[in-house]
Amino acid sequence: MSRPVAKVRVRSYIIRIQTGNVDGFIRRPAGLSRFRHCCRQHRRVEISTDTQQPFITVPRDFKIPEPLPLDCGRELKEVNIRYETAGELAPDGSNAILIAHALSGDAHVCGRHAPGDRKPGWWDAMIGPGRPIDTNRYFVICSNVLGGCSGSTGPGSVDPDTGRPYNMSFPVITVRDMVRAQKRLIDHLGIRKLLSVVGGSMGGMQVLEWAVSYPEAMASFVPIATACQFSPQNIAFDWVAREAIKADPNWKNGDYPPESPPSKGLAAARMLAHITYLSEESMSRKFGRNLQDKDTYDFDFDFDFAVESYLQYQGRCFVERFDANSYFYITRATDYFDLAGRTGGDLVAALSPVRAAALVVAFSSDWLFPTAQSRRLVDALLRNRVQVSFCEIESGYGHDAFLLEVDKLGRMVRDFLAHQREVFHG
Amino acid sequence: MSRPVAKVRVRSYIIRIQTGNVDGFIRRPAGLSRFRHCCRQHRRVEISTDTQQPFITVPRDFKIPEPLPLDCGRELKEVNIRYETAGELAPDGSNAILIAHALSGDAHVCGRHAPGDRKPGWWDAMIGPGRPIDTNRYFVICSNVLGGCSGSTGPGSVDPDTGRPYNMSFPVITVRDMVRAQKRLIDHLGIRKLLSVVGGSMGGMQVLEWAVSYPEAMASFVPIATACQFSPQNIAFDWVAREAIKADPNWKNGDYPPESPPSKGLAAARMLAHITYLSEESMSRKFGRNLQDKDTYDFDFDFDFAVESYLQYQGRCFVERFDANSYFYITRATDYFDLAGRTGGDLVAALSPVRAAALVVAFSSDWLFPTAQSRRLVDALLRNRVQVSFCEIESGYGHDAFLLEVDKLGRMVRDFLAHQREVFHG
Repeated sequence: MSRPVAKVRVRSYIIRIQTGNVDGFIRRPAGLSRFRHCCRQHRRVEISTDTQQPFITVPRDFKIPEPLPLDCGRELKEVNIRYETAGELAPDGSNAILIAHALSGDAHVCGRHAPGDRKPGWWDAMIGPGRPIDTNRYFVICSNVLGGCSGSTGPGSVDPDTGRPYNMSFPVITVRDMVRAQKRLIDHLGIRKLLSVVGGSMGGMQVLEWAVSYPEAMASFVPIATACQFSPQNIAFDWVAREAIKADPNWKNGDYPPESPPSKGLAAARMLAHITYLSEESMSRKFGRNLQDKDTYDFDFDFDFAVESYLQYQGRCFVERFDANSYFYITRATDYFDLAGRTGGDLVAALSPVRAAALVVAFSSDWLFPTAQSRRLVDALLRNRVQVSFCEIESGYGHDAFLLEVDKLGRMVRDFLAHQREVFHG
Repeated sequence: MSRPVAKVRVRSYIIRIQTGNVDGFIRRPAGLSRFRHCCRQHRRVEISTDTQQPFITVPRDFKIPEPLPLDCGRELKEVNIRYETAGELAPDGSNAILIAHALSGDAHVCGRHAPGDRKPGWWDAMIGPGRPIDTNRYFVICSNVLGGCSGSTGPGSVDPDTGRPYNMSFPVITVRDMVRAQKRLIDHLGIRKLLSVVGGSMGGMQVLEWAVSYPEAMASFVPIATACQFSPQNIAFDWVAREAIKADPNWKNGDYPPESPPSKGLAAARMLAHITYLSEESMSRKFGRNLQDKDTYDFDFDFDFAVESYLQYQGRCFVERFDANSYFYITRATDYFDLAGRTGGDLVAALSPVRAAALVVAFSSDWLFPTAQSRRLVDALLRNRVQVSFCEIESGYGHDAFLLEVDKLGRMVRDFLAHQREVFHG
């Protein structure tokens, strides 16, 4: 199974491919400059296509019938998983793709809940009719993670033993626990083998966890802008973010009423995280040292710079949709993520259960999950004779590129999935 | 004056020099491996030398007799500048070197205040008898910046008009204001022309401000790990740090009593800043994912990782010695720092007043002030026919390298100063 790898420079991106497998990749993205312009305006990019119709998705709930065992040794009863699907499951079940979301994502990955909704799902540019993950061909599932605050059981849920919200009595969960809950959902949907599991950032960690924990339940996987372990720098940023929440008197050790959450602390945490999602280049290009609606410094501590106003806006939006306690639990899950930690630091051994084929994608300016970490993953997979394609997409968008570079990323993923489906059928 | 530049690789560092000027630079640092080991143990490194004697420095105060005009249009009355000196001023005044400190520094740059003091000044490894900036040869001056909290007038000082602390009624100051106050001190000390002005990080900004504002008052300048402007990413980190302080209920819009400062918020701000002072490499080498005094995860939100414990310690130490309001004012001064902002973005024009010779130093893993920013400075100086030496020191320590890479940096600075003094005398 092990084949030599080739390194190919194709215009604006470098692809390292297993020879012979993925000819379809070697094409130049079209319409790139127009797309870039679009990206600068919106974080959630929508690509208009001729085929676009009002595309409605419906949130659903699955209550896991048995208690869910957790890595910490405790178990959770009456776990609910909020999920959405798009497309139709093929009669032979060969077209199911699970999407795993990042820290602040949710189950609403594509389409709209109602025709008049202003915003579509968070990866709508990638998923839908005619999109790179084409719901005319594939059956797409996305669920809110365990510990989240968008429908799935998390610290804000009611503890059936007490009748009161868990808050900080919720057990500390891991990425493996999130994936364990997802597996229950996939079983419930009657899917024996997923065509692929796809996700970026923390979604990519779930993807890797799937590949290791349920190797026979998937034909392929696509970890994007991620790593096999959270770095000390990543852990450090999470620590400071949680300290900022703790410093907010409204946090009350997690026992805040829903109507008065620790908004200032959570906003500061989000602003900090947001800086790490952008590159110095993208911040310089987008904001520079531009002032916000003024010509000279105000010599005070309110907004002077556009970048300050932007961050404040990001923080304010976030606290309207996200729960501070969930932020604690989800960030802790990522801190604990370390595949090789289970095998004494031996990543090759940690990845030895993997059977599915991989497409690993990194972005050149991503300093939160640098390309070097993806390379370590690729090397360890290759040493396990896993069929791997690897691409570092040149992009100035930093970590956020996995949401913004839809054109380049979409072509990669589209061709990879098409190939995997052929193999699956074959 | 403009000469061709040569690029020379000398073992572990690259020097770009004006040919013929600085032969003394091309020497390999000795004892490097031992020094490195030492650096890992302590942030403030002390190099033992045979010449070392108890070296005592004394804090002094200079009250500026006239009101100090500020860039914001206001003026400050009864400004005090806390400063220290070391060495003897030469009869012809040709050996005076001003050191400018970084954000959290102070006037106590070298030596001890009493023989039993546990810690020496913050750059003691660089300055003292027999050190790279040798106080047997040079007269060294360092003052606490305007806006600071270590003796110089700042937001914690009493407003002579009200008899109460300024707190947030203190005027917003700039790096140029800091330098303006330093110039009053230098005049008071009877120094017509400094041999050099030296500083790293925010100290480097003051150095650049000196070179532009008082070109005839200095023979040379050494900006280290700095830039001609604060980048949007730098501004963003400052914004979040101040938001974390604001989220602390003890801040009270700056009107906190000295005995109950916003310690949690200030600690979070410091921890955040501290992450930016280290490189991913140095964090990985120093901490990795090591656990703190345990073998397995605790599945809670207290310390699990060594890096968390370290950050918490850094935050706790900082709040014992630093004032939250000063943190507001000093970070705002750095936000506003933009030399080219005064000349419509034209850095070459902004630097046109410069007459002194420069040694510009950057560190390869410094992502807060990347080498590219130093290169822009060097290019703009060269286009002004300024005599410039530039060195990027290869180091894994990130921004903190300017405090830690004393061996490499010390040799550069020692030789540069020796050469400048010869020229000064000549």
